Amino acid sequence: MIDLKRELRETEAAVNETLERLLPRPEGLEGRVVEAMRYATLAGGKRLRPFLVVASARLFDVPELAALRCAAAVEMVHTYSLVHDDLPAMDDDDVRRGQPTCHVEFDDATAILAGDALLTLAFETLSAPATHRDPAVRCELIRGLAVAGGPAGMVGGQTDDLASEFAEGDLDNLESIHRRKTGAMFLVALRLGASTAAADAQQQAALEQYGEKLGLAFQIIDDLLDVSGHQAEIGKRVKKDTDRGKLTFPGLLGVEESRRRAVLLCDDACKALAPLGSRASSLEALVRYVVERNH
Amino acid sequence: MIDLKRELRETEAAVNETLERLLPRPEGLEGRVVEAMRYATLAGGKRLRPFLVVASARLFDVPELAALRCAAAVEMVHTYSLVHDDLPAMDDDDVRRGQPTCHVEFDDATAILAGDALLTLAFETLSAPATHRDPAVRCELIRGLAVAGGPAGMVGGQTDDLASEFAEGDLDNLESIHRRKTGAMFLVALRLGASTAAADAQQQAALEQYGEKLGLAFQIIDDLLDVSGHQAEIGKRVKKDTDRGKLTFPGLLGVEESRRRAVLLCDDACKALAPLGSRASSLEALVRYVVERNH
Repeated sequence: MIDLKRELRETEAAVNETLERLLPRPEGLEGRVVEAMRYATLAGGKRLRPFLVVASARLFDVPELAALRCAAAVEMVHTYSLVHDDLPAMDDDDVRRGQPTCHVEFDDATAILAGDALLTLAFETLSAPATHRDPAVRCELIRGLAVAGGPAGMVGGQTDDLASEFAEGDLDNLESIHRRKTGAMFLVALRLGASTAAADAQQQAALEQYGEKLGLAFQIIDDLLDVSGHQAEIGKRVKKDTDRGKLTFPGLLGVEESRRRAVLLCDDACKALAPLGSRASSLEALVRYVVERNH
Repeated sequence: MIDLKRELRETEAAVNETLERLLPRPEGLEGRVVEAMRYATLAGGKRLRPFLVVASARLFDVPELAALRCAAAVEMVHTYSLVHDDLPAMDDDDVRRGQPTCHVEFDDATAILAGDALLTLAFETLSAPATHRDPAVRCELIRGLAVAGGPAGMVGGQTDDLASEFAEGDLDNLESIHRRKTGAMFLVALRLGASTAAADAQQQAALEQYGEKLGLAFQIIDDLLDVSGHQAEIGKRVKKDTDRGKLTFPGLLGVEESRRRAVLLCDDACKALAPLGSRASSLEALVRYVVERNH
Protein backbone atom coordinates (compact mmCIF):
# COMPACT_ATOMS: atom_id res chain seq x y z
CA MET A 1 0.00 0.00 0.00
CA ILE A 2 1.37 3.35 -1.11
CA ASP A 3 1.69 6.14 1.45
CA LEU A 4 1.58 8.99 -1.05
CA LYS A 5 1.58 11.77 1.53
CA ARG A 6 4.82 10.45 2.99
CA GLU A 7 6.36 10.04 -0.48
CA LEU A 8 5.38 13.58 -1.39
CA ARG A 9 6.87 14.92 1.85
CA GLU A 10 10.10 12.98 1.40
CA THR A 11 10.51 14.13 -2.20
CA GLU A 12 9.71 17.69 -1.21
CA ALA A 13 12.43 17.64 1.45
CA ALA A 14 15.01 16.11 -0.89
CA VAL A 15 14.16 18.55 -3.70
CA ASN A 16 14.30 21.52 -1.34
CA GLU A 17 17.72 20.44 -0.14
CA THR A 18 18.90 20.08 -3.75
CA LEU A 19 17.54 23.50 -4.69
CA GLU A 20 19.09 25.04 -1.60
CA ARG A 21 22.47 23.66 -2.70
CA LEU A 22 22.13 24.64 -6.37
CA LEU A 23 20.88 28.20 -5.85
CA PRO A 24 23.61 30.83 -5.47
CA ARG A 25 24.11 32.47 -2.07
CA PRO A 26 23.29 36.16 -1.63
CA GLU A 27 26.69 37.25 -0.31
CA GLY A 28 27.94 38.82 -3.57
CA LEU A 29 27.27 42.23 -5.01
CA GLU A 30 24.30 40.95 -6.94
CA GLY A 31 22.71 39.86 -3.62
CA ARG A 32 19.28 41.28 -4.31
CA VAL A 33 18.52 39.18 -7.37
CA VAL A 34 19.88 36.07 -5.65
CA GLU A 35 17.68 36.74 -2.61
CA ALA A 36 14.70 37.01 -4.93
CA MET A 37 15.62 33.73 -6.68
CA ARG A 38 15.82 31.98 -3.32
CA TYR A 39 12.65 33.62 -2.01
CA ALA A 40 10.58 32.49 -4.98
CA THR A 41 12.06 29.01 -5.23
CA LEU A 42 12.30 28.02 -1.57
CA ALA A 43 8.82 29.35 -0.67
CA GLY A 44 7.38 25.89 -0.94
CA GLY A 45 4.67 24.81 -3.31
CA LYS A 46 3.43 21.30 -3.87
CA ARG A 47 6.53 20.24 -5.85
CA LEU A 48 4.33 18.11 -8.11
CA ARG A 49 6.64 18.40 -11.11
CA PRO A 50 9.73 17.33 -9.13
CA PHE A 51 7.69 14.42 -7.77
CA LEU A 52 6.90 13.33 -11.33
CA VAL A 53 10.61 13.39 -12.22
CA VAL A 54 11.56 11.38 -9.15
CA ALA A 55 8.69 8.90 -9.46
CA SER A 56 9.33 8.23 -13.13
CA ALA A 57 13.09 7.93 -12.52
CA ARG A 58 12.39 5.34 -9.80
CA LEU A 59 10.56 3.19 -12.32
CA PHE A 60 13.87 2.75 -14.11
CA ASP A 61 16.26 2.66 -11.15
CA VAL A 62 17.83 6.01 -12.02
CA PRO A 63 20.25 7.12 -9.26
CA GLU A 64 18.55 9.47 -6.80
CA LEU A 65 21.11 12.27 -7.23
CA ALA A 66 20.58 12.48 -10.99
CA ALA A 67 16.81 12.45 -10.57
CA LEU A 68 16.92 15.19 -7.95
CA ARG A 69 19.04 17.46 -10.14
CA CYS A 70 16.56 17.03 -13.00
CA ALA A 71 13.71 17.62 -10.54
CA ALA A 72 15.36 20.82 -9.33
CA ALA A 73 15.85 22.04 -12.91
CA VAL A 74 12.17 21.48 -13.71
CA GLU A 75 11.15 23.29 -10.52
CA MET A 76 13.41 26.25 -11.40
CA VAL A 77 11.67 26.57 -14.78
CA HIS A 78 8.25 26.24 -13.13
CA THR A 79 9.16 28.86 -10.53
CA TYR A 80 10.53 31.31 -13.11
CA SER A 81 7.25 30.98 -15.01
CA LEU A 82 5.25 31.75 -11.86
CA VAL A 83 7.43 34.77 -11.03
CA HIS A 84 6.98 36.21 -14.52
CA ASP A 85 3.26 35.27 -14.82
CA ASP A 86 2.52 37.01 -11.50
CA LEU A 87 3.94 40.37 -12.70
CA PRO A 88 1.54 43.32 -13.06
CA ALA A 89 2.11 43.21 -16.84
CA MET A 90 0.85 39.63 -16.91
CA ASP A 91 -1.61 38.09 -14.40
CA ASP A 92 -0.93 40.72 -11.70
CA ASP A 93 -1.07 38.47 -8.65
CA ASP A 94 -0.09 39.52 -5.13
CA VAL A 95 -0.08 36.19 -3.32
CA ARG A 96 1.57 32.92 -4.31
CA ARG A 97 2.32 29.86 -2.25
CA GLY A 98 0.75 31.73 0.67
CA GLN A 99 3.17 34.65 0.68
CA PRO A 100 3.60 37.94 -1.22
CA THR A 101 4.63 37.33 -4.83
CA CYS A 102 8.23 38.02 -5.78
CA HIS A 103 7.60 41.45 -7.36
CA VAL A 104 5.58 42.52 -4.30
CA GLU A 105 8.28 41.41 -1.86
CA PHE A 106 11.08 42.89 -4.02
CA ASP A 107 10.14 44.94 -7.09
CA ASP A 108 9.18 44.32 -10.72
CA ALA A 109 12.70 44.67 -12.10
CA THR A 110 14.16 42.28 -9.56
CA ALA A 111 11.37 39.77 -10.22
CA ILE A 112 12.02 39.87 -13.98
CA LEU A 113 15.76 39.37 -13.44
CA ALA A 114 15.26 36.63 -10.82
CA GLY A 115 13.02 34.74 -13.24
CA ASP A 116 15.60 35.11 -16.00
CA ALA A 117 18.32 33.85 -13.68
CA LEU A 118 16.27 30.81 -12.57
CA LEU A 119 15.64 29.81 -16.17
CA THR A 120 19.36 30.16 -16.89
CA LEU A 121 20.32 28.15 -13.79
CA ALA A 122 18.02 25.29 -14.84
CA PHE A 123 20.06 24.76 -17.99
CA GLU A 124 23.36 25.19 -16.16
CA THR A 125 22.23 22.49 -13.71
CA LEU A 126 21.35 20.02 -16.46
CA SER A 127 24.64 20.65 -18.31
CA ALA A 128 26.83 19.49 -15.39
CA PRO A 129 28.33 15.98 -15.28
CA ALA A 130 26.72 15.36 -11.86
CA THR A 131 23.33 15.24 -13.61
CA HIS A 132 24.30 12.28 -15.81
CA ARG A 133 27.66 10.82 -16.74
CA ASP A 134 26.75 10.69 -20.45
CA PRO A 135 26.85 14.19 -22.02
CA ALA A 136 24.62 12.99 -24.87
CA VAL A 137 21.88 12.30 -22.30
CA ARG A 138 22.46 15.71 -20.72
CA CYS A 139 22.00 17.38 -24.11
CA GLU A 140 18.77 15.41 -24.59
CA LEU A 141 17.51 16.60 -21.19
CA ILE A 142 18.35 20.21 -22.08
CA ARG A 143 16.65 19.97 -25.45
CA GLY A 144 13.57 18.41 -23.86
CA LEU A 145 13.28 21.08 -21.19
CA ALA A 146 13.86 23.88 -23.72
CA VAL A 147 11.17 22.62 -26.08
CA ALA A 148 8.67 22.14 -23.23
CA GLY A 149 9.42 25.62 -21.88
CA GLY A 150 9.44 27.44 -25.24
CA PRO A 151 6.87 28.84 -27.68
CA ALA A 152 5.61 25.35 -28.62
CA GLY A 153 5.12 24.65 -24.90
CA MET A 154 4.77 26.71 -21.77
CA VAL A 155 5.54 30.19 -23.15
CA GLY A 156 3.14 29.61 -26.05
CA GLY A 157 0.42 28.41 -23.68
CA GLN A 158 0.80 31.46 -21.47
CA THR A 159 0.69 33.75 -24.54
CA ASP A 160 -2.61 32.24 -25.65
CA ASP A 161 -3.97 32.18 -22.10
CA LEU A 162 -3.43 35.96 -21.84
CA ALA A 163 -5.04 36.42 -25.25
CA SER A 164 -8.07 34.41 -24.11
CA GLU A 165 -9.18 37.13 -21.67
CA PHE A 166 -12.71 38.19 -22.63
CA ALA A 167 -12.37 36.29 -25.90
CA GLU A 168 -14.62 33.64 -27.40
CA GLY A 169 -13.27 30.11 -27.29
CA ASP A 170 -14.29 26.48 -27.26
CA LEU A 171 -13.09 23.35 -25.50
CA ASP A 172 -10.49 22.71 -28.20
CA ASN A 173 -8.88 26.13 -27.64
CA LEU A 174 -8.92 25.66 -23.90
CA GLU A 175 -7.39 22.19 -24.00
CA SER A 176 -4.79 23.41 -26.47
CA ILE A 177 -3.80 26.28 -24.14
CA HIS A 178 -3.41 23.99 -21.17
CA ARG A 179 -1.75 21.18 -23.06
CA ARG A 180 1.05 23.73 -23.60
CA LYS A 181 0.81 25.94 -20.50
CA THR A 182 0.68 23.18 -17.89
CA GLY A 183 0.80 19.88 -19.76
CA ALA A 184 4.15 20.35 -21.50
CA MET A 185 6.01 20.76 -18.21
CA PHE A 186 4.22 17.76 -16.63
CA LEU A 187 5.18 15.67 -19.64
CA VAL A 188 8.80 16.79 -19.67
CA ALA A 189 9.05 16.05 -15.94
CA LEU A 190 8.00 12.46 -16.62
CA ARG A 191 10.28 12.30 -19.64
CA LEU A 192 13.35 13.63 -17.80
CA GLY A 193 13.03 10.78 -15.33
CA ALA A 194 12.73 8.24 -18.13
CA SER A 195 15.42 9.80 -20.37
CA THR A 196 18.13 9.43 -17.75
CA ALA A 197 17.40 5.71 -17.94
CA ALA A 198 16.81 3.74 -21.11
CA ALA A 199 13.05 3.38 -21.00
CA ASP A 200 11.67 1.42 -23.96
CA ALA A 201 9.15 2.84 -26.43
CA GLN A 202 6.14 1.18 -24.79
CA GLN A 203 7.07 2.47 -21.35
CA GLN A 204 7.65 5.97 -22.70
CA ALA A 205 4.32 5.93 -24.52
CA ALA A 206 2.60 4.87 -21.28
CA LEU A 207 4.16 7.81 -19.44
CA GLU A 208 3.17 10.23 -22.22
CA GLN A 209 -0.44 9.02 -22.10
CA TYR A 210 -0.47 9.30 -18.34
CA GLY A 211 1.12 12.75 -18.37
CA GLU A 212 -1.38 14.14 -20.86
CA LYS A 213 -4.40 13.00 -18.84
CA LEU A 214 -2.79 14.12 -15.58
CA GLY A 215 -2.02 17.57 -16.98
CA LEU A 216 -5.60 18.20 -18.13
CA ALA A 217 -7.10 16.78 -14.93
CA PHE A 218 -4.79 19.03 -12.90
CA GLN A 219 -5.89 22.09 -14.84
CA ILE A 220 -9.60 21.33 -14.55
CA ILE A 221 -9.23 21.02 -10.77
CA ASP A 222 -7.18 24.24 -10.72
CA ASP A 223 -10.02 26.02 -12.52
CA LEU A 224 -12.58 24.51 -10.11
CA LEU A 225 -10.56 25.61 -7.08
CA ASP A 226 -10.42 29.12 -8.52
CA VAL A 227 -14.23 29.11 -8.48
CA SER A 228 -14.85 27.38 -5.14
CA GLY A 229 -11.61 27.37 -3.14
CA HIS A 230 -10.43 29.59 -0.31
CA GLN A 231 -7.34 31.76 -0.69
CA ALA A 232 -6.04 30.73 2.74
CA GLU A 233 -6.06 27.07 1.73
CA ILE A 234 -4.72 27.25 -1.81
CA GLY A 235 -2.19 30.01 -1.16
CA LYS A 236 -3.11 32.23 -4.09
CA ARG A 237 -5.91 34.60 -5.03
CA VAL A 238 -9.17 32.94 -6.09
CA LYS A 239 -11.95 33.98 -8.51
CA LYS A 240 -9.30 35.74 -10.58
CA ASP A 241 -10.01 33.78 -13.79
CA THR A 242 -13.68 34.69 -13.77
CA ASP A 243 -12.91 38.33 -12.94
CA ARG A 244 -10.66 38.48 -15.95
CA GLY A 245 -13.08 36.73 -18.27
CA LYS A 246 -10.63 33.92 -18.88
CA LEU A 247 -11.57 30.78 -20.71
CA THR A 248 -11.94 28.06 -18.01
CA PHE A 249 -13.34 24.55 -17.81
CA PRO A 250 -16.18 25.40 -15.37
CA GLY A 251 -16.90 28.51 -17.46
CA LEU A 252 -17.33 26.39 -20.58
CA LEU A 253 -18.76 23.17 -19.14
CA GLY A 254 -20.16 24.06 -15.74
CA VAL A 255 -18.89 22.79 -12.39
CA GLU A 256 -20.51 19.36 -12.47
CA GLU A 257 -19.42 18.41 -15.97
CA SER A 258 -15.89 19.71 -15.27
CA ARG A 259 -15.60 17.52 -12.20
CA ARG A 260 -16.95 14.51 -14.11
CA ARG A 261 -14.31 15.04 -16.80
CA ALA A 262 -11.52 15.30 -14.25
CA VAL A 263 -12.57 11.96 -12.74
CA LEU A 264 -12.70 10.33 -16.19
CA LEU A 265 -9.24 11.70 -17.03
CA CYS A 266 -7.96 10.34 -13.73
CA ASP A 267 -9.28 6.86 -14.59
CA ASP A 268 -7.75 7.05 -18.07
CA ALA A 269 -4.41 8.16 -16.59
CA CYS A 270 -4.40 5.14 -14.27
CA LYS A 271 -5.26 2.78 -17.12
CA ALA A 272 -2.40 4.24 -19.19
CA LEU A 273 0.05 3.14 -16.49
CA ALA A 274 -0.75 -0.58 -16.97
CA PRO A 275 2.37 -1.43 -19.06
CA LEU A 276 4.54 -0.12 -16.20
CA GLY A 277 3.18 -2.66 -13.71
CA SER A 278 2.91 -2.29 -9.97
CA ARG A 279 5.96 -0.05 -9.70
CA ALA A 280 3.83 2.78 -11.09
CA SER A 281 1.53 2.80 -8.08
CA SER A 282 2.95 6.13 -6.84
CA LEU A 283 1.99 7.77 -10.11
CA GLU A 284 -1.47 6.22 -9.84
CA ALA A 285 -1.86 7.56 -6.31
CA LEU A 286 -0.64 10.95 -7.47
CA VAL A 287 -3.29 11.50 -10.12
CA ARG A 288 -6.01 10.48 -7.62
CA TYR A 289 -4.56 12.97 -5.14
CA VAL A 290 -4.47 15.70 -7.79
CA VAL A 291 -8.14 15.19 -8.62
CA GLU A 292 -9.26 14.98 -4.98
CA ARG A 293 -7.14 17.85 -3.64
CA ASN A 294 -8.72 20.98 -2.23
CA HIS A 295 -5.66 23.21 -2.47
CA MET B 1 45.15 44.34 -44.91
CA ILE B 2 41.91 43.54 -43.07
CA ASP B 3 38.67 44.93 -44.49
CA LEU B 4 36.78 44.91 -41.17
CA LYS B 5 33.66 46.59 -42.51
CA ARG B 6 33.30 43.86 -45.11
CA GLU B 7 33.94 41.13 -42.53
CA LEU B 8 31.34 42.65 -40.21
CA ARG B 9 28.81 42.85 -43.04
CA GLU B 10 29.44 39.26 -44.10
CA THR B 11 29.16 37.92 -40.56
CA GLU B 12 26.03 39.97 -40.01
CA ALA B 13 24.42 38.48 -43.10
CA ALA B 14 25.40 34.92 -42.17
CA VAL B 15 24.23 35.35 -38.57
CA ASN B 16 20.94 36.88 -39.67
CA GLU B 17 20.35 33.96 -42.00
CA THR B 18 21.11 31.51 -39.17
CA LEU B 19 18.80 33.33 -36.77
CA GLU B 20 16.07 33.47 -39.39
CA ARG B 21 16.34 29.69 -39.74
CA LEU B 22 16.47 28.94 -35.99
CA LEU B 23 13.63 31.22 -34.89
CA PRO B 24 10.16 29.64 -34.96
CA ARG B 25 7.64 30.85 -37.55
CA PRO B 26 4.57 32.76 -36.44
CA GLU B 27 2.00 30.49 -38.09
CA GLY B 28 0.92 28.67 -34.90
CA LEU B 29 -1.53 29.70 -32.23
CA GLU B 30 1.24 31.30 -30.19
CA GLY B 31 1.99 33.57 -33.17
CA ARG B 32 2.15 36.79 -31.20
CA VAL B 33 5.09 35.80 -29.01
CA VAL B 34 6.91 34.34 -32.00
CA GLU B 35 6.37 37.56 -33.96
CA ALA B 36 7.84 39.48 -31.02
CA MET B 37 10.85 37.14 -30.86
CA ARG B 38 11.50 37.68 -34.55
CA TYR B 39 10.88 41.43 -34.37
CA ALA B 40 13.42 41.90 -31.57
CA THR B 41 16.05 39.54 -32.96
CA LEU B 42 15.92 40.35 -36.65
CA ALA B 43 15.81 44.14 -36.14
CA GLY B 44 19.52 44.37 -36.75
CA GLY B 45 22.08 45.67 -34.33
CA LYS B 46 25.82 45.61 -34.78
CA ARG B 47 26.09 41.86 -34.12
CA LEU B 48 29.38 42.42 -32.30
CA ARG B 49 29.02 39.36 -30.07
CA PRO B 50 28.31 37.02 -32.99
CA PHE B 51 31.32 38.53 -34.74
CA LEU B 52 33.48 37.67 -31.73
CA VAL B 53 32.28 34.06 -31.84
CA VAL B 54 32.94 33.75 -35.55
CA ALA B 55 36.32 35.53 -35.45
CA SER B 56 37.60 33.45 -32.54
CA ALA B 57 36.30 30.24 -34.12
CA ARG B 58 38.18 31.11 -37.31
CA LEU B 59 41.43 31.28 -35.35
CA PHE B 60 41.04 27.56 -34.71
CA ASP B 61 39.50 26.46 -38.00
CA VAL B 62 36.13 25.66 -36.44
CA PRO B 63 33.55 24.80 -39.13
CA GLU B 64 31.47 27.84 -40.09
CA LEU B 65 28.12 26.17 -39.36
CA ALA B 66 29.06 25.35 -35.75
CA ALA B 67 30.39 28.86 -35.19
CA LEU B 68 27.24 30.44 -36.62
CA ARG B 69 24.97 28.39 -34.37
CA CYS B 70 27.00 29.47 -31.33
CA ALA B 71 26.92 33.05 -32.62
CA ALA B 72 23.15 32.88 -33.00
CA ALA B 73 22.75 31.50 -29.46
CA VAL B 74 24.83 34.36 -28.02
CA GLU B 75 22.80 36.90 -29.99
CA MET B 76 19.53 35.38 -28.72
CA VAL B 77 20.74 35.81 -25.13
CA HIS B 78 21.90 39.36 -25.87
CA THR B 79 18.57 40.20 -27.51
CA TYR B 80 16.51 38.73 -24.66
CA SER B 81 18.51 40.89 -22.24
CA LEU B 82 17.79 44.02 -24.31
CA VAL B 83 14.06 43.20 -24.52
CA HIS B 84 13.81 42.76 -20.76
CA ASP B 85 16.11 45.70 -19.89
CA ASP B 86 14.01 48.01 -22.07
CA LEU B 87 10.79 47.23 -20.15
CA PRO B 88 9.14 50.07 -18.18
CA ALA B 89 9.97 48.19 -14.94
CA MET B 90 13.67 48.31 -15.85
CA ASP B 91 15.31 50.96 -18.06
CA ASP B 92 12.02 52.02 -19.71
CA ASP B 93 13.33 52.63 -23.23
CA ASP B 94 11.16 53.30 -26.26
CA VAL B 95 13.68 53.02 -29.07
CA ARG B 96 16.21 50.29 -29.77
CA ARG B 97 18.15 49.51 -32.90
CA GLY B 98 16.37 52.47 -34.47
CA GLN B 99 12.84 51.11 -34.02
CA PRO B 100 10.20 50.95 -31.27
CA THR B 101 11.28 48.59 -28.49
CA CYS B 102 9.55 45.21 -28.28
CA HIS B 103 7.13 46.17 -25.51
CA VAL B 104 6.15 49.36 -27.37
CA GLU B 105 5.53 47.50 -30.63
CA PHE B 106 3.69 44.64 -28.87
CA ASP B 107 2.97 44.96 -25.12
CA ASP B 108 4.79 44.35 -21.83
CA ALA B 109 3.50 40.80 -21.34
CA THR B 110 4.47 39.74 -24.84
CA ALA B 111 7.92 41.32 -24.45
CA ILE B 112 8.53 39.44 -21.19
CA LEU B 113 7.45 36.16 -22.79
CA ALA B 114 9.43 36.78 -25.99
CA GLY B 115 12.57 37.41 -23.93
CA ASP B 116 11.96 34.22 -21.96
CA ALA B 117 11.49 32.27 -25.17
CA LEU B 118 14.68 33.67 -26.74
CA LEU B 119 16.72 32.67 -23.70
CA THR B 120 15.20 29.19 -23.86
CA LEU B 121 15.86 28.90 -27.59
CA ALA B 122 19.53 29.79 -27.10
CA PHE B 123 20.04 26.68 -24.96
CA GLU B 124 17.97 24.52 -27.28
CA THR B 125 20.18 25.65 -30.15
CA LEU B 126 23.41 24.78 -28.35
CA SER B 127 22.10 21.36 -27.28
CA ALA B 128 21.58 20.13 -30.86
CA PRO B 129 24.13 17.85 -32.58
CA ALA B 130 24.43 20.34 -35.48
CA THR B 131 26.25 22.71 -33.11
CA HIS B 132 29.07 20.26 -32.41
CA ARG B 133 29.37 16.54 -32.94
CA ASP B 134 30.74 15.99 -29.41
CA PRO B 135 27.97 16.28 -26.78
CA ALA B 136 30.58 16.96 -24.07
CA VAL B 137 31.57 20.13 -25.95
CA ARG B 138 27.90 21.10 -26.31
CA CYS B 139 27.44 20.75 -22.55
CA GLU B 140 30.51 22.94 -22.01
CA LEU B 141 29.08 25.60 -24.33
CA ILE B 142 25.76 25.51 -22.47
CA ARG B 143 27.43 25.77 -19.08
CA GLY B 144 29.60 28.67 -20.30
CA LEU B 145 26.66 30.61 -21.71
CA ALA B 146 24.56 29.95 -18.57
CA VAL B 147 27.29 31.16 -16.22
CA ALA B 148 27.94 34.28 -18.32
CA GLY B 149 24.21 35.05 -18.49
CA GLY B 150 23.42 34.34 -14.83
CA PRO B 151 23.76 36.15 -11.49
CA ALA B 152 27.55 35.97 -11.56
CA GLY B 153 27.44 37.55 -15.03
CA MET B 154 24.94 39.53 -17.06
CA VAL B 155 21.88 39.31 -14.77
CA GLY B 156 24.02 40.26 -11.76
CA GLY B 157 25.53 43.21 -13.63
CA GLN B 158 22.10 44.47 -14.64
CA THR B 159 20.86 44.12 -11.04
CA ASP B 160 23.72 46.25 -9.75
CA ASP B 161 23.39 48.72 -12.62
CA LEU B 162 19.75 49.36 -11.65
CA ALA B 163 20.79 49.70 -8.01
CA SER B 164 23.42 52.27 -8.99
CA GLU B 165 20.78 54.85 -9.93
CA PHE B 166 21.36 57.94 -7.81
CA ALA B 167 23.77 55.98 -5.60
CA GLU B 168 27.36 56.73 -4.66
CA GLY B 169 29.97 54.59 -6.35
CA ASP B 170 33.59 54.52 -7.40
CA LEU B 171 35.50 53.24 -10.40
CA ASP B 172 35.79 49.77 -8.87
CA ASN B 173 31.99 49.46 -8.56
CA LEU B 174 31.50 50.72 -12.07
CA GLU B 175 34.06 48.36 -13.60
CA SER B 176 32.61 45.48 -11.60
CA ILE B 177 29.11 46.22 -12.94
CA HIS B 178 30.28 46.31 -16.52
CA ARG B 179 32.63 43.38 -16.22
CA ARG B 180 29.45 41.40 -15.55
CA LYS B 181 26.79 43.33 -17.47
CA THR B 182 28.65 43.60 -20.78
CA GLY B 183 32.02 41.92 -20.29
CA ALA B 184 30.78 38.43 -19.39
CA MET B 185 28.91 38.06 -22.67
CA PHE B 186 31.85 39.39 -24.71
CA LEU B 187 34.12 36.89 -22.98
CA VAL B 188 31.77 33.96 -23.48
CA ALA B 189 31.41 34.86 -27.15
CA LEU B 190 35.18 34.58 -27.55
CA ARG B 191 35.22 31.40 -25.46
CA LEU B 192 32.45 29.69 -27.41
CA GLY B 193 34.50 30.08 -30.55
CA ALA B 194 37.59 28.66 -28.85
CA SER B 195 35.72 25.89 -26.97
CA THR B 196 34.40 24.31 -30.13
CA ALA B 197 38.05 23.84 -31.12
CA ALA B 198 40.81 22.70 -28.81
CA ALA B 199 42.52 26.01 -28.09
CA ASP B 200 45.52 25.64 -25.76
CA ALA B 201 45.77 27.41 -22.40
CA GLN B 202 47.98 30.24 -23.70
CA GLN B 203 45.61 30.96 -26.59
CA GLN B 204 42.61 30.92 -24.29
CA ALA B 205 44.34 33.26 -21.82
CA ALA B 206 45.13 35.65 -24.69
CA LEU B 207 41.46 35.72 -25.70
CA GLU B 208 40.35 36.27 -22.08
CA GLN B 209 42.73 39.22 -21.72
CA TYR B 210 41.59 40.66 -25.02
CA GLY B 211 37.91 40.17 -24.15
CA GLU B 212 38.20 41.88 -20.80
CA LYS B 213 39.84 45.00 -22.26
CA LEU B 214 37.44 45.04 -25.20
CA GLY B 215 34.43 44.80 -22.89
CA LEU B 216 35.46 47.76 -20.76
CA ALA B 217 36.50 49.85 -23.77
CA PHE B 218 33.14 49.12 -25.38
CA GLN B 219 31.28 50.23 -22.26
CA ILE B 220 33.26 53.46 -21.87
CA ILE B 221 32.45 54.38 -25.47
CA ASP B 222 28.82 53.44 -24.90
CA ASP B 223 28.71 55.84 -21.93
CA LEU B 224 30.42 58.57 -24.00
CA LEU B 225 27.93 58.14 -26.83
CA ASP B 226 25.10 58.46 -24.33
CA VAL B 227 26.53 61.88 -23.43
CA SER B 228 27.47 63.16 -26.88
CA GLY B 229 25.75 60.97 -29.49
CA HIS B 230 22.63 61.52 -31.54
CA GLN B 231 19.65 59.21 -31.21
CA ALA B 232 19.23 59.00 -34.99
CA GLU B 233 22.77 57.67 -35.37
CA ILE B 234 22.99 55.27 -32.47
CA GLY B 235 19.42 53.96 -32.71
CA LYS B 236 18.51 54.35 -29.04
CA ARG B 237 17.67 57.16 -26.66
CA VAL B 238 20.62 59.26 -25.47
CA LYS B 239 21.34 61.15 -22.22
CA LYS B 240 19.28 58.53 -20.39
CA ASP B 241 22.09 57.48 -18.03
CA THR B 242 22.65 61.02 -16.81
CA ASP B 243 18.91 61.62 -16.46
CA ARG B 244 18.68 58.58 -14.24
CA GLY B 245 21.71 59.43 -12.13
CA LYS B 246 23.47 56.26 -13.24
CA LEU B 247 27.09 55.62 -12.49
CA THR B 248 28.97 56.16 -15.77
CA PHE B 249 32.58 56.53 -16.87
CA PRO B 250 32.28 60.15 -18.05
CA GLY B 251 30.28 60.89 -14.89
CA LEU B 252 33.11 59.60 -12.71
CA LEU B 253 36.17 60.51 -14.80
CA GLY B 254 35.05 63.23 -17.19
CA VAL B 255 34.86 62.92 -20.97
CA GLU B 256 38.57 63.43 -21.72
CA GLU B 257 39.87 60.94 -19.18
CA SER B 258 37.23 58.38 -20.22
CA ARG B 259 38.30 58.63 -23.85
CA ARG B 260 41.98 58.33 -22.86
CA ARG B 261 41.21 55.14 -20.91
CA ALA B 262 39.30 53.62 -23.80
CA VAL B 263 42.29 54.19 -26.08
CA LEU B 264 44.65 52.63 -23.52
CA LEU B 265 42.36 49.61 -23.15
CA CYS B 266 42.29 49.29 -26.91
CA ASP B 267 46.11 49.21 -27.05
CA ASP B 268 46.23 46.64 -24.23
CA ALA B 269 43.63 44.49 -25.99
CA CYS B 270 45.73 44.49 -29.16
CA LYS B 271 48.88 43.57 -27.22
CA ALA B 272 47.04 40.69 -25.55
CA LEU B 273 46.44 39.17 -28.97
CA ALA B 274 50.18 38.68 -29.66
CA PRO B 275 50.27 34.92 -28.87
CA LEU B 276 47.59 34.37 -31.52
CA GLY B 277 49.75 35.78 -34.33
CA SER B 278 48.60 37.45 -37.50
CA ARG B 279 45.38 35.42 -37.71
CA ALA B 280 43.99 37.61 -34.92
CA SER B 281 44.08 40.74 -37.04
CA SER B 282 40.28 40.82 -37.34
CA LEU B 283 39.98 40.97 -33.57
CA GLU B 284 42.58 43.74 -33.51
CA ALA B 285 40.66 45.71 -36.11
CA LEU B 286 37.45 45.12 -34.17
CA VAL B 287 38.60 46.71 -30.93
CA ARG B 288 39.90 49.74 -32.86
CA TYR B 289 36.53 50.00 -34.58
CA VAL B 290 34.71 49.74 -31.25
CA VAL B 291 36.74 52.59 -29.76
CA GLU B 292 36.45 54.82 -32.81
CA ARG B 293 32.74 54.16 -33.53
CA ASN B 294 30.20 56.96 -33.30
CA HIS B 295 27.13 54.74 -33.04
